[in-house]
Amino acid sequence: MIEINHDRLMDDLHRAADFGRYKTGVHRPTFSPQDMDARYWLAEKMRAAGLAATVDGVGNVIGRSNGTGRKLLLGSHSESQNHAGWLDGILGVIYAIETARALGESGQYPDLGVDVGVWADEENHFLQFLGSRSFCNRLEESDIAGARNKDNGTPLPVALRLAGLEGRPREHLEAGRYQGYLEAHIEQGDYLDSTGLKIGVVTSIVGLWQYKIRFVGEQNHAGTTRMAARKDAGAALIKLAGAIDDNFPKIAGKWSVWTTGRIDLMPGLRSIIPGESVMVFQFRDADPAQLEIFEQKLLQLVAESNAAGPCRCEIEVLNKAMPMHMDDSFQATIEKAAEHHAPGQHVRMPSGAIHDAQILATQMPAGMVFVPSIGGISHHYVENTSTDDIILGCRVFATAAEMLLAQR
Amino acid sequence: MIEINHDRLMDDLHRAADFGRYKTGVHRPTFSPQDMDARYWLAEKMRAAGLAATVDGVGNVIGRSNGTGRKLLLGSHSESQNHAGWLDGILGVIYAIETARALGESGQYPDLGVDVGVWADEENHFLQFLGSRSFCNRLEESDIAGARNKDNGTPLPVALRLAGLEGRPREHLEAGRYQGYLEAHIEQGDYLDSTGLKIGVVTSIVGLWQYKIRFVGEQNHAGTTRMAARKDAGAALIKLAGAIDDNFPKIAGKWSVWTTGRIDLMPGLRSIIPGESVMVFQFRDADPAQLEIFEQKLLQLVAESNAAGPCRCEIEVLNKAMPMHMDDSFQATIEKAAEHHAPGQHVRMPSGAIHDAQILATQMPAGMVFVPSIGGISHHYVENTSTDDIILGCRVFATAAEMLLAQR
Repeated sequence: MIEINHDRLMDDLHRAADFGRYKTGVHRPTFSPQDMDARYWLAEKMRAAGLAATVDGVGNVIGRSNGTGRKLLLGSHSESQNHAGWLDGILGVIYAIETARALGESGQYPDLGVDVGVWADEENHFLQFLGSRSFCNRLEESDIAGARNKDNGTPLPVALRLAGLEGRPREHLEAGRYQGYLEAHIEQGDYLDSTGLKIGVVTSIVGLWQYKIRFVGEQNHAGTTRMAARKDAGAALIKLAGAIDDNFPKIAGKWSVWTTGRIDLMPGLRSIIPGESVMVFQFRDADPAQLEIFEQKLLQLVAESNAAGPCRCEIEVLNKAMPMHMDDSFQATIEKAAEHHAPGQHVRMPSGAIHDAQILATQMPAGMVFVPSIGGISHHYVENTSTDDIILGCRVFATAAEMLLAQR
Repeated sequence: MIEINHDRLMDDLHRAADFGRYKTGVHRPTFSPQDMDARYWLAEKMRAAGLAATVDGVGNVIGRSNGTGRKLLLGSHSESQNHAGWLDGILGVIYAIETARALGESGQYPDLGVDVGVWADEENHFLQFLGSRSFCNRLEESDIAGARNKDNGTPLPVALRLAGLEGRPREHLEAGRYQGYLEAHIEQGDYLDSTGLKIGVVTSIVGLWQYKIRFVGEQNHAGTTRMAARKDAGAALIKLAGAIDDNFPKIAGKWSVWTTGRIDLMPGLRSIIPGESVMVFQFRDADPAQLEIFEQKLLQLVAESNAAGPCRCEIEVLNKAMPMHMDDSFQATIEKAAEHHAPGQHVRMPSGAIHDAQILATQMPAGMVFVPSIGGISHHYVENTSTDDIILGCRVFATAAEMLLAQR
């Protein structure tokens, strides 16, 4: 069995956190100088691990092995959310590089190989899954031309030029090269942490359906307009949002989640009855049938709101991403590796967050390994995982990769 | 009985709408060039009516009669809300000037007199009731120094200087000069219009109590955070706002109104569970006991929200303006004048909107006359009142003033 070097693993993770260090986390938005420095540093690490590494035209860092036999692709993303945690993304990248090193050092599998992919902009500063979509040929040049930075509006082509990536070729998946794709990530939720379990074997990445719900009423004076004469778009929104929160628990699955993340009342002044209002609502589940159940209920509640009046309610689908199932044999192998290193301390679970693995999974078998997030906190600089859990997670990841490569 | 000149009345109203004309309404914010031009024009109109007129240090236009006997103060405001109606405010000013003219022309009451006050900034571009508060000695220099334009942040002292008012004295109420104050205004609501009545005799200006209600939960990832583990400040707000809308109708009075005009979820992103949320809530009623009933219910609902958890709910009083009762004998006189000109077509009703009369009413008996607003629309350039209703309103207003002056 190949052996990871846990000191080297932790040293690399701590070194990576120097790129854009912010309080106890990092601020490393896609294509920032800190992000680009990290990508070139990762390319160097890959070369030191014996991989032929290149930074491509959208910032992906691709490291290829020269093994002639079976190969796995391992990877994750290296940029961070704004002012966020030190492990989100980069943990899976360093696991991948450490696994490549451990495989090479073992000398047991001279023909087998792991390639490492460091994907750009999973965090959607410009374009969700920019890197993994580009690698999997699921991205048009027009997608790049039309994307802008969410914070400052910089067009993506300008950001690529400023990052020194203009003119570099985009690397693409070579058909048939890989047996599959493996990615590790912090859980981001609190399920492992709250149950004391150490490893999550991801069964699927949940589907995410999002809607914009708009109410049109009549803007008017909040003092002179009698209650009976009002068409209050804010009150109509509150009623529908309340009905969702009353009804969804009754029809939800074990892992279902739903969220109203944004509400706007127009004009938003204290003495004016809102004439218009908008809410953005989403739900997630790993089961397509559950997503359908939620949508039917939502459409029913919207219809009831329209029937009740006095405001008009319109619903627009923002996106309906379907759940992506992780390969069954990959799940079984990861579970076996977890049972070896952490007997009885692993669980099969869906991923509530999206990951590059769902893009790679459209091209080949894919699997994911989760490690605990302390307090379930992510996208915040206090995000953390214990050193023991980080090391244990890498052992499980490397063993799973070894088993997948070595199995006939 | 004194007679108004309805052609002159309508001519003056139409001429006034030239100052800042915007579509079918006006855009005449306080101390804009258009607003100042209108004020100097109004001063000229007062002089032509035999009043000694002056524009004071906060933009009030005060016209004083030289009658030696009993006097009334008549008035309203002349600035508009942004891009708003052609009658809101100025209608009462022109009624006042027309009444002064009709009284003088009648020759019946040589000793009696009406003064006219055109108040500045009732519409709160800088400071609510700036003019009427200044006139009634309810305004400190520090209030002026600290106020800024709500749209562009210009400090009030700078705006006064730019308007050419710097250094002018502020005019103040002379104790004992007036028998009382009378103001006419468009209703702004739809009660008169929807019932076909022509004149509202205002019983009181409603009290307005406003609150900022803040929920503190825990910001987290909308995909990875299980429903049971959430502290969703948005969901907590929706629940409380829904409880208000469920409970308030059961305890409301005939004229009660309540409004949630603004909701903010923080950070307001679709995939992040709101960690904090704020709503601004207000209610209005003419009866102090009803305001107390509402506040008790609101505090009870906030307490229930805190008891239920998981978010903390804090409530802050923004302001608690008490209802201002209009003088009973003024109401009776206005009703008598209305019955003379529009038999059976008048009604006693509270004002849901605030008016300068509530400031003047702290110093002397006060009364208000409402005319219908078509469709109840105000604070919008389509605001309107039929010519017949405008003329009828002025007749009632002038007759009421005459009765108040002439009665022993």
